[in-house]
Amino acid sequence: MTRLFNDPDDFAADSAAGFAAASGRWVRQVTGGVVRSTRGPEPTVAVVIGGGSGHYPAFAGLVGPGLAHGAAMGNLFASPSAHQVHSVATAAHEGRGVLLSYGNYAGDVLHFTQAQERLREAGIDCRTVTVTDDIYSAPADESEKRRGIAGDLVVFKVAGAAAEAGYDLDGVERVAILANERTRSLGVAFTGCTLPGADEPLFTVPEGRMAVGLGIHGEPGIDEVDVPSADGLAELFVSSLLAEIPEGVDVAGARVVPILNGLGSVKYEELYVVYDAVHRLLGEAGAVVVSPEVGEFCTSFDMAGVSLTLLWLDDELEDLWHAPCDTPAYRRGAVDGRVAAEIAGEDLHEDEFAVGDASDESRAAAVTIGRALDAMAGMLDEQADELGRIDRVAGDGDHGIGMQRGSRAAATAAADAVQRSAGSRTTLQHAGDAWADKGGGTSGAIWGEMLVALGAALGDDAAVDAEAVGAGVARMKDAVMSFGKAKPGDKTMIDAIVPFADRLHERLGAGAGLIEAWRDAADAATAAAEATAQLTAKLGRARSHGDKSIGTPDPGAVSFALIAHTVLRILEEED
Amino acid sequence: MTRLFNDPDDFAADSAAGFAAASGRWVRQVTGGVVRSTRGPEPTVAVVIGGGSGHYPAFAGLVGPGLAHGAAMGNLFASPSAHQVHSVATAAHEGRGVLLSYGNYAGDVLHFTQAQERLREAGIDCRTVTVTDDIYSAPADESEKRRGIAGDLVVFKVAGAAAEAGYDLDGVERVAILANERTRSLGVAFTGCTLPGADEPLFTVPEGRMAVGLGIHGEPGIDEVDVPSADGLAELFVSSLLAEIPEGVDVAGARVVPILNGLGSVKYEELYVVYDAVHRLLGEAGAVVVSPEVGEFCTSFDMAGVSLTLLWLDDELEDLWHAPCDTPAYRRGAVDGRVAAEIAGEDLHEDEFAVGDASDESRAAAVTIGRALDAMAGMLDEQADELGRIDRVAGDGDHGIGMQRGSRAAATAAADAVQRSAGSRTTLQHAGDAWADKGGGTSGAIWGEMLVALGAALGDDAAVDAEAVGAGVARMKDAVMSFGKAKPGDKTMIDAIVPFADRLHERLGAGAGLIEAWRDAADAATAAAEATAQLTAKLGRARSHGDKSIGTPDPGAVSFALIAHTVLRILEEED
Repeated sequence: MTRLFNDPDDFAADSAAGFAAASGRWVRQVTGGVVRSTRGPEPTVAVVIGGGSGHYPAFAGLVGPGLAHGAAMGNLFASPSAHQVHSVATAAHEGRGVLLSYGNYAGDVLHFTQAQERLREAGIDCRTVTVTDDIYSAPADESEKRRGIAGDLVVFKVAGAAAEAGYDLDGVERVAILANERTRSLGVAFTGCTLPGADEPLFTVPEGRMAVGLGIHGEPGIDEVDVPSADGLAELFVSSLLAEIPEGVDVAGARVVPILNGLGSVKYEELYVVYDAVHRLLGEAGAVVVSPEVGEFCTSFDMAGVSLTLLWLDDELEDLWHAPCDTPAYRRGAVDGRVAAEIAGEDLHEDEFAVGDASDESRAAAVTIGRALDAMAGMLDEQADELGRIDRVAGDGDHGIGMQRGSRAAATAAADAVQRSAGSRTTLQHAGDAWADKGGGTSGAIWGEMLVALGAALGDDAAVDAEAVGAGVARMKDAVMSFGKAKPGDKTMIDAIVPFADRLHERLGAGAGLIEAWRDAADAATAAAEATAQLTAKLGRARSHGDKSIGTPDPGAVSFALIAHTVLRILEEED
Repeated sequence: MTRLFNDPDDFAADSAAGFAAASGRWVRQVTGGVVRSTRGPEPTVAVVIGGGSGHYPAFAGLVGPGLAHGAAMGNLFASPSAHQVHSVATAAHEGRGVLLSYGNYAGDVLHFTQAQERLREAGIDCRTVTVTDDIYSAPADESEKRRGIAGDLVVFKVAGAAAEAGYDLDGVERVAILANERTRSLGVAFTGCTLPGADEPLFTVPEGRMAVGLGIHGEPGIDEVDVPSADGLAELFVSSLLAEIPEGVDVAGARVVPILNGLGSVKYEELYVVYDAVHRLLGEAGAVVVSPEVGEFCTSFDMAGVSLTLLWLDDELEDLWHAPCDTPAYRRGAVDGRVAAEIAGEDLHEDEFAVGDASDESRAAAVTIGRALDAMAGMLDEQADELGRIDRVAGDGDHGIGMQRGSRAAATAAADAVQRSAGSRTTLQHAGDAWADKGGGTSGAIWGEMLVALGAALGDDAAVDAEAVGAGVARMKDAVMSFGKAKPGDKTMIDAIVPFADRLHERLGAGAGLIEAWRDAADAATAAAEATAQLTAKLGRARSHGDKSIGTPDPGAVSFALIAHTVLRILEEED
């Protein structure tokens, strides 16, 4: 378990600061993450990676010459926000375009895609290659749905080496895709990790048993078997990965890089015992082992787990894999010609945001908005454990902590805005940005967008009446639906917000007062959230986790309904 | 806990094989450990390090250009034997002398010192610098008694860089001593590790508490406090280490390298949270932080622990610290001009030992010796847990497992010798070597020497009668006393073997038969072993562990008495 922290809420930020203090030879901290502190003789394509914290050396430990140019650093197991990715990519950009690369998780895809759109709007050529090496996370014919685990290192290293070698953005994208296509991984776990400040591990595996197909965020495995011998585990790894050899590769004579990765507390000597058999089995299969790696390349705090990754080389990939690099956590050969760089981009410290003019009515409404956000944060403090528990049934268990952090950050930002006499739009804009930055993950992104959408509808001038609220909620609903691309019945937050917005619209249209209409709408949201327990989980989840989630409501729908009732209470008090 | 292994007894050997398979770019396996697989343009002094397994990257992970030339790899938490150290040093030697460097533990000192004597006898100039960085393991005025923990890296790196720079043996020894004098560490632990095949961790710390002054073999801490915040731990580390600044160093303006070391399952993000405060506190004290390291440099399997090491630089040390190196686990800058090396020295596989002529009587006695060793191994299998428990009161808990492994290896070697018609001397010689190699630690060294001494007394020709046994036991006693330099009353095995040998001598001199005399002697050994519970532990132990060992017998004395009774049973059966 994680024991050493100050305020658990500050864990990721404290860790990032310590990392930057220790790693000034390689990196410099900017808003949202780190970029290289050195620059080579010629500008290159910038490879920007990132993801949640808790996977060191993924992601920030892989920034430096010959590897990545920058890493967006999200909160614990939570995607960095689009704002953070955009900030890091802007600082890392050297004028030759940006390759975004990261593990294929819904939250990361949402935020990095938003960031890519913003970069393109700013005229920066930007491509994306997501890493999908985990063979247990989706079948071979849906490999684009697979998660990224330790194969991250391979794709980042190949892309970084290509950039270093002067490849243009097309070329860097091409070899990153090639590296991903030729990389396969499988992981197992014996215990989950315990996040800072949490009382329990994200999942547990019975003593003497082993979960097969683990995810690096505490997603439980798909199968569970007795703990095998080291040789038995090597057999499982190698036979599973040899059954999925990339197209066009013939094992006999193929050159392959094995990467045996400890997730946290499966330690080096133990890894080497397993590696001994992996090496032998690959040789027996006729493959030629090249430059193996045994160590910790993508961790999950102190999870007791281990994964094997195989990279099937061709000549180009072999050259790129062997090229020199120099980063805090991964070094190879000699990298020359570096000088300290003055790097453009946002400074680490957030700028004070500008507060424009606002009407007295809009300021008065902002006060109520601030009170509502504060009440939401208080309620989510209390409910975080229960929301986490619900989320653990089918997800990675971070919904509670993400909502807790995001709402607290939003409430703090709103209080600051209100104190500076901001109107409703400005208050909600900054609250939404704060929620997305600090809450992270899909829920952070969606709630951030929802607050911003609501603010845009309310403006900084108009009084906030029932009609304005109704229009704002409709905008929130639209924002969620276009953002997440989910539909009603997919067992997401949408299953609560749609009936909420529809009922509110209907009751206001029928002439009800705001409080009365909101009460009915909140009740509808609660009923709908409860009803999500009867829905089969979304296809991907159902496949990964069997039918475990049936009977458990969707945590995002539940938290939406709880928030609707919290806001109702504030509206009643203000009345 | 350690979960992945095949036969737990083979864990260290399997791990070493896997390490060598994964690390052929840097190392080649030889008997007793690894040496570099490459050679530079000019011969240099050879820096040979080593210790027990379970501390990766210490020790084998630090072999390569710019760092160590070879590493002797003992069994789990057990010193390599003199034979192993000698083998590695011989293979690593490039004609300019050998520096032996290792953490200051009794077993390592015994074996490395023996190896040094053998190397000097062979005409190889050899020096030793033990690492003594752990400030909690003895007071400042007895710093030569301190243990070595993560400061190992500093001393090895500086010595290796000096060798690489062409320093002669005097020079390499000088800077290694200087580096050790300017290096201080302090560690804390939250849980101990669980060795492969063991049911329980080597020690436990109550939930919410932290042991201060841990050792890396599961030696419990000296103080126990509530788990502090990350800032609080940094405060403890920095204030304790600043209270012990090396002579001649003024903190204001001093250049210092902090090394924050995770022992196994305190992971990277957590380390960086602590580092953030360490960095700030060192700066506030006026020191200039240079090239910090945060990671895992000296582990203890999956122990939840962390240590801080400070290296106070002078100009020479700073150059050597920053010099390039390239090893499996620690790399810096560019190392050039390497070619694959053909390295002299013993091959990895043990040579079949030669079996010379022997009389029929001596061969018959060898059969009995083989039976006795087999019975000892069986008994020690059963008693290993209990001996480990006793040893944990004041020691590192490895006595049971060391005796178990060593006796099993000795029994196997003896069976092989007997099967090849060896006499008593040859059988005991090979059994003793096997015990020292596989059992490791102080007990392995002493039992190895005892068997060899007994064999030398018995010879391969004479019949083994009561008189010969009496003479042999007297030689065993002498070997133990000269080897370990302990005296009766020091609470060691000597407290059992001395009364045993004396009683045997007395009863045989009075005309008793061998079995009768042995029975009395074994009873005397048992009584004496039990009486060790009343002795205050040796000074060093007493200081480190308070009076915890009072009331518990010495495990070495207990195992000696148990063995004496096991041999008695075989003598009775053979009668």
